[in-house]
Amino acid sequence: MKSKAKKKYNILVSNDDGIDAPGIYVLVQELRKIGDVVVVAPDKQQSAVGHAITMNFPLRAKEVKKDGAFFGYAVEGTPADSVKLAVKALLKKKPDLVVSGVNHGANTAISIIYSGTVSAATEGTILGIPSMAVSLTTYGPPDFRYAAKFARKLAQLVLKKGLPEGTLLNVNVPAVAEKEIKGVRVTRQARAVWNDTFDVRRDPTNKEYYWLTGNLQDDDEGPEFDQSCVRDNYVSVTPIHYDLTDYKLLGMMEQWDVDSLH
Amino acid sequence: MKSKAKKKYNILVSNDDGIDAPGIYVLVQELRKIGDVVVVAPDKQQSAVGHAITMNFPLRAKEVKKDGAFFGYAVEGTPADSVKLAVKALLKKKPDLVVSGVNHGANTAISIIYSGTVSAATEGTILGIPSMAVSLTTYGPPDFRYAAKFARKLAQLVLKKGLPEGTLLNVNVPAVAEKEIKGVRVTRQARAVWNDTFDVRRDPTNKEYYWLTGNLQDDDEGPEFDQSCVRDNYVSVTPIHYDLTDYKLLGMMEQWDVDSLH
Repeated sequence: MKSKAKKKYNILVSNDDGIDAPGIYVLVQELRKIGDVVVVAPDKQQSAVGHAITMNFPLRAKEVKKDGAFFGYAVEGTPADSVKLAVKALLKKKPDLVVSGVNHGANTAISIIYSGTVSAATEGTILGIPSMAVSLTTYGPPDFRYAAKFARKLAQLVLKKGLPEGTLLNVNVPAVAEKEIKGVRVTRQARAVWNDTFDVRRDPTNKEYYWLTGNLQDDDEGPEFDQSCVRDNYVSVTPIHYDLTDYKLLGMMEQWDVDSLH
Repeated sequence: MKSKAKKKYNILVSNDDGIDAPGIYVLVQELRKIGDVVVVAPDKQQSAVGHAITMNFPLRAKEVKKDGAFFGYAVEGTPADSVKLAVKALLKKKPDLVVSGVNHGANTAISIIYSGTVSAATEGTILGIPSMAVSLTTYGPPDFRYAAKFARKLAQLVLKKGLPEGTLLNVNVPAVAEKEIKGVRVTRQARAVWNDTFDVRRDPTNKEYYWLTGNLQDDDEGPEFDQSCVRDNYVSVTPIHYDLTDYKLLGMMEQWDVDSLH
């Protein structure tokens, strides 16, 4: 007879590409090796929604089966809505871990603040659950397998070590063959921002409209930045938090005499 | 003959309550005292959209007049879209300052990351422009006059002193009569999070739906936190930035041997 099984973890999976995205499916297959997995994710693609939540409309959730078995819930809402609703209403038990992804596209540098993938994991952290976001750095045809496998191994480490209150991990995996990946680095968010441009067009009635285009300015060189790390074929793991206070300026502002403004 | 006028600043105003919101109108009246003001804001209410941007749809902008004169543009998009489109396509000249608000409702503690008001100012900062977000801490009937006046005075200080690259100011003004305001404090983002609950209801066809409710847990006591500062009738000014890296955990993770996960 087999000895008592190891503790099975309860893992909540979400994303911003929607519950039908291949990236979430591959991730679930891997995470099932270490725990019971439930998926609660937006019912449709929600990229670049940032940390949006739905306050003025009710949310609906629909049970979803895949391969004939319970898979999770599709939520008519954002990634942050999905995780909030999962933990506070849909799931019987608080998850041990939230994993968001695998996203189809990088979430490095400034993209972190626009990212629905990261926001799902951030919401897990806000709810007091160790959380991580995982992205594959390509907009071309994706192969999520290595990223999902890496996510599972990192999940095991996070479940063992825990994370400080208020902090999550943002993971970016280079979109190259497994044997071309050189290693893993702990990184910081690069300061690169998008060099936005708008493509101005005219509709058939001659009214102007604007398409957002542009590219990420890659100014930060060095192994410590997420952006250059994935470019050099290393997996980047960036610890991030949601205390946005700039403590350096806070200290300097003591000299500003803001009270005189009243 | 009057001597040459002082340098007139170009000020971009945005918000998340929409271009028709009274809070933006009162703010514009004040800021016109120190510069030329253009408003580029969402065409409708966009609260709690976080730092969402529109990537899969084109944006449209419509010229808006108020009191018979040019006021600005209404954008079919989010607050971040509005500021991006203003600076990169609609305005002839890069603004000297971005002011977002006056928001109807507090943006303290964790609310900062859900806030469309803050995201408009954040977008200004990303584009290299000194920026600030201003909120009035009430959901009841608002009187925006003191908040707008304070915003104008702080704007003058910011235009004089500048802000470090990547940092903006998040201002919250207590919703009390001017004479009851005790002063101004430089603060940090409180760690308080929402104690979310979902109100489960059934629609006429007996299908479940969920309304988000809940209240902000006010755990952080002390003059250094934005949340308790406004509760005690002080204006709070919090310097925030968008580098989300948790440098403390980053240092500790050197011991994690993440490279062994590859």
